Amino acid sequence: MIQDDHTPLWGGRFEKAPAAALQEFGASLPVDKRLWAQDIAGSKAHARMLAAQGILSQEDAELIVAGLDAIGEQIAAGDFDFDIVDEDIHMSIERALTERIGDAGRRLHTGRSRNDQVATDARLYCKQQASALAGQLLKARETLILVAQAHRDVILPGYTHMQKAQPVLFSHHLLAYSWMLARDFKRMIAARDAADASPLGAAALAGTSYPLNRQQTAAELGFSAVIPNSLDAVSDRDFMLDLVYACSTAMIHLSRLSEELILWSTEEFGFITLDDTYATGSSIMPQKKNPDFAELVRGKTGRVVGDLVGLLTVLKGLPLAYNKDLQEDKEGTFDAIDTLSASLAAVTGMLATLRVNADVMLEAAQGGFMAATDLADFLVGTGMPFREAHEVVGRIVLHAEKKQCTLQQISMAELREFSAAFDESVSEVIDIAAVVSRRTTEGGTSPSSVEIQIAQARKQLEDDQRSL
Amino acid sequence: MIQDDHTPLWGGRFEKAPAAALQEFGASLPVDKRLWAQDIAGSKAHARMLAAQGILSQEDAELIVAGLDAIGEQIAAGDFDFDIVDEDIHMSIERALTERIGDAGRRLHTGRSRNDQVATDARLYCKQQASALAGQLLKARETLILVAQAHRDVILPGYTHMQKAQPVLFSHHLLAYSWMLARDFKRMIAARDAADASPLGAAALAGTSYPLNRQQTAAELGFSAVIPNSLDAVSDRDFMLDLVYACSTAMIHLSRLSEELILWSTEEFGFITLDDTYATGSSIMPQKKNPDFAELVRGKTGRVVGDLVGLLTVLKGLPLAYNKDLQEDKEGTFDAIDTLSASLAAVTGMLATLRVNADVMLEAAQGGFMAATDLADFLVGTGMPFREAHEVVGRIVLHAEKKQCTLQQISMAELREFSAAFDESVSEVIDIAAVVSRRTTEGGTSPSSVEIQIAQARKQLEDDQRSL
Amino acid sequence: MIQDDHTPLWGGRFEKAPAAALQEFGASLPVDKRLWAQDIAGSKAHARMLAAQGILSQEDAELIVAGLDAIGEQIAAGDFDFDIVDEDIHMSIERALTERIGDAGRRLHTGRSRNDQVATDARLYCKQQASALAGQLLKARETLILVAQAHRDVILPGYTHMQKAQPVLFSHHLLAYSWMLARDFKRMIAARDAADASPLGAAALAGTSYPLNRQQTAAELGFSAVIPNSLDAVSDRDFMLDLVYACSTAMIHLSRLSEELILWSTEEFGFITLDDTYATGSSIMPQKKNPDFAELVRGKTGRVVGDLVGLLTVLKGLPLAYNKDLQEDKEGTFDAIDTLSASLAAVTGMLATLRVNADVMLEAAQGGFMAATDLADFLVGTGMPFREAHEVVGRIVLHAEKKQCTLQQISMAELREFSAAFDESVSEVIDIAAVVSRRTTEGGTSPSSVEIQIAQARKQLEDDQRSL
Amino acid sequence: MIQDDHTPLWGGRFEKAPAAALQEFGASLPVDKRLWAQDIAGSKAHARMLAAQGILSQEDAELIVAGLDAIGEQIAAGDFDFDIVDEDIHMSIERALTERIGDAGRRLHTGRSRNDQVATDARLYCKQQASALAGQLLKARETLILVAQAHRDVILPGYTHMQKAQPVLFSHHLLAYSWMLARDFKRMIAARDAADASPLGAAALAGTSYPLNRQQTAAELGFSAVIPNSLDAVSDRDFMLDLVYACSTAMIHLSRLSEELILWSTEEFGFITLDDTYATGSSIMPQKKNPDFAELVRGKTGRVVGDLVGLLTVLKGLPLAYNKDLQEDKEGTFDAIDTLSASLAAVTGMLATLRVNADVMLEAAQGGFMAATDLADFLVGTGMPFREAHEVVGRIVLHAEKKQCTLQQISMAELREFSAAFDESVSEVIDIAAVVSRRTTEGGTSPSSVEIQIAQARKQLEDDQRSL
Repeated sequence: MIQDDHTPLWGGRFEKAPAAALQEFGASLPVDKRLWAQDIAGSKAHARMLAAQGILSQEDAELIVAGLDAIGEQIAAGDFDFDIVDEDIHMSIERALTERIGDAGRRLHTGRSRNDQVATDARLYCKQQASALAGQLLKARETLILVAQAHRDVILPGYTHMQKAQPVLFSHHLLAYSWMLARDFKRMIAARDAADASPLGAAALAGTSYPLNRQQTAAELGFSAVIPNSLDAVSDRDFMLDLVYACSTAMIHLSRLSEELILWSTEEFGFITLDDTYATGSSIMPQKKNPDFAELVRGKTGRVVGDLVGLLTVLKGLPLAYNKDLQEDKEGTFDAIDTLSASLAAVTGMLATLRVNADVMLEAAQGGFMAATDLADFLVGTGMPFREAHEVVGRIVLHAEKKQCTLQQISMAELREFSAAFDESVSEVIDIAAVVSRRTTEGGTSPSSVEIQIAQARKQLEDDQRSL
Repeated sequence: MIQDDHTPLWGGRFEKAPAAALQEFGASLPVDKRLWAQDIAGSKAHARMLAAQGILSQEDAELIVAGLDAIGEQIAAGDFDFDIVDEDIHMSIERALTERIGDAGRRLHTGRSRNDQVATDARLYCKQQASALAGQLLKARETLILVAQAHRDVILPGYTHMQKAQPVLFSHHLLAYSWMLARDFKRMIAARDAADASPLGAAALAGTSYPLNRQQTAAELGFSAVIPNSLDAVSDRDFMLDLVYACSTAMIHLSRLSEELILWSTEEFGFITLDDTYATGSSIMPQKKNPDFAELVRGKTGRVVGDLVGLLTVLKGLPLAYNKDLQEDKEGTFDAIDTLSASLAAVTGMLATLRVNADVMLEAAQGGFMAATDLADFLVGTGMPFREAHEVVGRIVLHAEKKQCTLQQISMAELREFSAAFDESVSEVIDIAAVVSRRTTEGGTSPSSVEIQIAQARKQLEDDQRSL
Repeated sequence: MIQDDHTPLWGGRFEKAPAAALQEFGASLPVDKRLWAQDIAGSKAHARMLAAQGILSQEDAELIVAGLDAIGEQIAAGDFDFDIVDEDIHMSIERALTERIGDAGRRLHTGRSRNDQVATDARLYCKQQASALAGQLLKARETLILVAQAHRDVILPGYTHMQKAQPVLFSHHLLAYSWMLARDFKRMIAARDAADASPLGAAALAGTSYPLNRQQTAAELGFSAVIPNSLDAVSDRDFMLDLVYACSTAMIHLSRLSEELILWSTEEFGFITLDDTYATGSSIMPQKKNPDFAELVRGKTGRVVGDLVGLLTVLKGLPLAYNKDLQEDKEGTFDAIDTLSASLAAVTGMLATLRVNADVMLEAAQGGFMAATDLADFLVGTGMPFREAHEVVGRIVLHAEKKQCTLQQISMAELREFSAAFDESVSEVIDIAAVVSRRTTEGGTSPSSVEIQIAQARKQLEDDQRSL
Repeated sequence: MIQDDHTPLWGGRFEKAPAAALQEFGASLPVDKRLWAQDIAGSKAHARMLAAQGILSQEDAELIVAGLDAIGEQIAAGDFDFDIVDEDIHMSIERALTERIGDAGRRLHTGRSRNDQVATDARLYCKQQASALAGQLLKARETLILVAQAHRDVILPGYTHMQKAQPVLFSHHLLAYSWMLARDFKRMIAARDAADASPLGAAALAGTSYPLNRQQTAAELGFSAVIPNSLDAVSDRDFMLDLVYACSTAMIHLSRLSEELILWSTEEFGFITLDDTYATGSSIMPQKKNPDFAELVRGKTGRVVGDLVGLLTVLKGLPLAYNKDLQEDKEGTFDAIDTLSASLAAVTGMLATLRVNADVMLEAAQGGFMAATDLADFLVGTGMPFREAHEVVGRIVLHAEKKQCTLQQISMAELREFSAAFDESVSEVIDIAAVVSRRTTEGGTSPSSVEIQIAQARKQLEDDQRSL
């Protein structure tokens, strides 16, 4: 029911009040109440500036700031009564303020509109969240590096097309993910910086005739700059797109890692054992130990991609300046933030607690004819063109597969039937540990290369920590 | 904190319990508690069938059914204490049941898994919701037809490329939307039918060794069929995709209609006036009357498209049978259902209450040289090939535009300079009402054609109402 | 360069011709020339109808039909010179017709617009393609059933959460996919039916004043119905959405199957061996045999989901009636059609030629404690509540895992330490083949249940074949 | 047919060759042949480095470089015969090279794989294209600024919710778009930088045992860095995501501008007249002048969003390192690049040639009670709280609307009935030009504020030009 003392504040021009059901449809309060702290901070800065510019009396400003602080404490304590009739967080707080301090509360909205107000709140929030997510990305990278270091020389099969390709170090494999997350960190910082400009003072769309000082409110709120165009200030949601996009790529990376954790946890691979805290059982099958959290992270990637599509779709074809469609910006953005945050925590925890089954990995690395490339390279070393060597070794592999033996088990005599270029030194060439150690190219999988890569990853991490 | 009496039911195999934070990440309860009524109905049917098959004692079955009914009343009354420790709605209810009736409660899960249980709940829910949405689509179509009928002969400009093209009847224009929603009704019924098959009895993935009677539970729950393959039964989410897809196309149609309501409400078009209940004001600009609800419907289209993308992304590349990723199926589906339902209510209400400014529409229809096609057709009637007539009239329009006059204001002498084929009968040819009346093709815009179309739309509506 | 004899046909009103670069941007010819056969069929039907209605002379109509036939032969033979200056396939053919038969060619466009013309072409094409894809879906289902039948009693592990869950029949597993594709068939038929209504005669948007007979052209073109509303006829692209959606769900299903084919082809699983025709090698690693085609199918799922999103985004918020944005409907639709068609061919071929490694599957099915559920059911049979039995067996599994033995290798004495309810009959209960055979529920995995399911799948296939 | 001299180069291990139809499915040549110049550049750098490292003879390297140059000239001249049997651009060129120079050609692939080769090609291409698109974005911004400057003092209505809100300068409005594109420029530069690291030398996934010098090839190819992890180097497609994302946001912005150009071109708004070169006509309605190119840009936004979704979907859940799914990365990326490039050209051209109907804009700005905010501010100036003033003015607007007069036409006596605070000075307050001039806030719409903004936009443009 719409109560008398809750007449919508824009009601003067209207003859009837919206129906209650519509109020729920139109209200953003259930979603945007999350922005209460930002809304209060924005209003305090606005009030102080109004006073400094002589638009508001010093007395009113003090009343407003004190009132807002009290409301903030009330909300923080869970004692604030949010009422859907207020439509949004701005109206909720303003009404409470006016009930508390009277007419001064009504003067707060001077030279401001909900259009610049909500943009200010959202930017403050996104800036903080992007920083927090960037911090979580750093922690995940640090965990990857630590786990890599702890198992530096563990060998596992490297795959392409899910087929065993060449043996690699487990540490090398994990570091690949640390670089993905390093790029996500960069995107997250870009998203933070995109949010870091103040729309406050743009008013509804055109600025205002009050002599506002936008630099002052921007500075008090910690914004690095003032948005130079008021129409842009109220209609721009790029900072949200950038944030949701950064969440999407990070989730894509986590989905790839989760896929591997799931695969590695199968009985067939058996490369790792997830800690019991990161696995669950079955209500019907007593033997099950399911990598639920990795599966959830993989699945939740869908919702974040959906959030990105949702926001892009909302923005397509919208004319300037503010349109109500923009109210739909927040729920998806908040969902992307929450999902990435929880997913990063889950993945970091899984990594920190998993058991590496080094022996299983090594045994797997013996199979799959993974020394074949080195065998071909051996032939190239004798002067054979690579394409020809590749052909010869392909035939040897086919032979071994039919005999169901490994490359190492083929006799010298047999080998020489395929090419007279083979000699005894071949056996050393195709030893798996030697195969790994030989890949000393910059960025390659040899222990010496990976040692350097760990140092590089750590240096980048430290640089990024300092930049946050 | 995890309490002792809340040990996860799959805990026998595990040495440690998942951390509390993870519990929140893994729990679906906040989302799936919405399925409580379906979960209770499914469990009752399962218990009765177990008893009928002699798997459960009659006594136990009666205790279970009575216990579930009591729990159902408790939830309906808002007195049930949902606890995230229970993970999901199934465990919540089962735990409460066991607390209430003891060991018999523990026997309920015989021959069942959460995998077939959640699929049963979701199918029951989606089936009901698809029916409800289909009903709302019927109501929206009825409203469109009624408004069309009430303003049957009102003429407004028809647009292509947003440029005035040919005059059309307002009723003709509205009926176009009724046909879009008729197609959405068909999709919604297809989605309902896709959900209408019982997975219960598939157990975890392979069926069970208990002599279950799947036909009995299917019949009791109102399912038309039993899903023929147990692996498919627990891993199929197509019925959700179909439902979210039907919601997406309906939202796309509503977004098109909303765009027009927004355009028509501008001062520039002025074709309609939205009722005050369906408009809101501005916190800063006292003169504003904003079509917020139409804008919200247009914007909310984004979230439903996002829900569809999210679900498709979740399913991509998932191996059989059940994977935890599937837990991510529900939130987006529920969101699509809720959003379409609220949007249909808003649009139907807007249509039912808007004021049609027939005079403004008619005046607009006089402009834009919209009789040009008829002028060309006149020339064709005299034997000129259409392409040539088109060319001649194009030059006349350019002439009129430069003179800033309408086609009707060009003198016969002038016309004859462009073509000697013109004679006095032309003036009748280019009268706007005559232009409309002349389009008597089946499906065309003449009053007589539209009269038939209203009857067709009404007949389809009645047929569809009967089929629901 | 724009030549004189290529003046755009709508040029009379214009003073300058569009720049050449823009022509390319605006032209749809490179994409829509694929519709040439449909365009010619539509034009022939239109000409014959015009003649039958006395709007065109019989002589002109005959000239037009003969001219169009000649042009059709020319295009089919690859001798037609498509010129981007013509913008689209409609203009290409009309210009060629006029060059060939003179003024009669110019009379063809009487009572028609490119708006209804392109909708007619697209509907004819989509209808045909949906039928063709439905046929391919039938063939894929038949292949699945045949392969299932050929390996009916092969046992492999059934997985949930990618963890071994319960043993299932390989045939049972494959049949799950046949049901997915059966649902896609249904969607494809719905898409075909959505396209099966004639827009011809809607003209630009409002119908026309010529006494067209829309029933006649609809009948000649094989359409089941005439679209009842001309505005809807030119602006509706739902039939394309339905088709692309059907392609999307089918691709999602194929991506799931491809994921399994890829997994099963790994050395770790080894359940199948893809035929050499469906695998490729590596340019650097001679031993590699990569499941490229399965990976491509999985990857190509992305482009089809992208096509769906693209089309939904185009349609969002478009006012009536025709807008040029709609020109963007075709490329994505064609891409989805082509991609699904090629993917179905690839998957069907892979299935038909793969080698089933039954022994490897069976050996894998012995592991993973997959009889645990049956062990628990045994205890339930002795009167223990299921939840308690589940707990007991969980502890036994943990014990076996620590001892690194199978359930079958645990002695009776050990078992009885966990529960006194165990007796000698247990050994039969946990035999893997017995575990499978016991799941005789409808839809379950026992050979007898699967026998019935094969018959059901075959019956559905035959019914669907008849309906196509 | 597969010819003998076209045996796939990985064929040694295989017994049968893939079927011809599959070859087409698997081949990327039709798409990736666009990368020929990058492929040749990469191969030349690789050959020179191999020689410098003593892996290849100087003689061979010279033969290779000369051969590649000759092939490059052949392709550039359109004389190269691409054959689908070669699968991809890498094989096409290598085969041609070997045909031309013999065995030396076969030695080129030493220490390299198609995995790092294709990543190198794609990165070189994306880097170039991102720069080119950034350049186009600069040109579009410059055009916006020039048009803004040329019409600096033109007043038009500013809209929120598509309702007239407050009068703004046309220049102010256009500048909002220049800031959107400035952010897109930033994203495009980030995409360019993301591509700017060399994967060459990562080989298949693990590096190689040849003593490659990755720094040398990176430097020769103009890359700023070497990718530090070989697994990451071959599986990372983030640089493509970043580029397609930058294209998406730019298209979203262009779709917003296009929507406004379309609206402004309607008879109802009439604010601008598009140049004839940027408009087209109708094949049936001689009077039509359609904003086709703006509509196409708006529509093409859908395909770019679809490209982004496609790429995200491809990457979801992919394990390391290279998977064939990644072949699907290019077509969508190329499409996004091409689409944005053509759309920027079209929009820039439209802006540069459109006619601004300043008088129509001004007249429109007189309507809509757009001085209402200033009227309320006047009351606030007399000491009334803003919320109260808002209420009072709302009632005045309702009164004016009922009387069908403007705010300016209400008499002082009438005004004073609403509030005694009104006096004669009000008339100046509500003059539209004065309303605009009064909004002197930083970023506001007054001529003085906009003057500063033009300077800011120009300065940013110049800074960005220098950074490109």
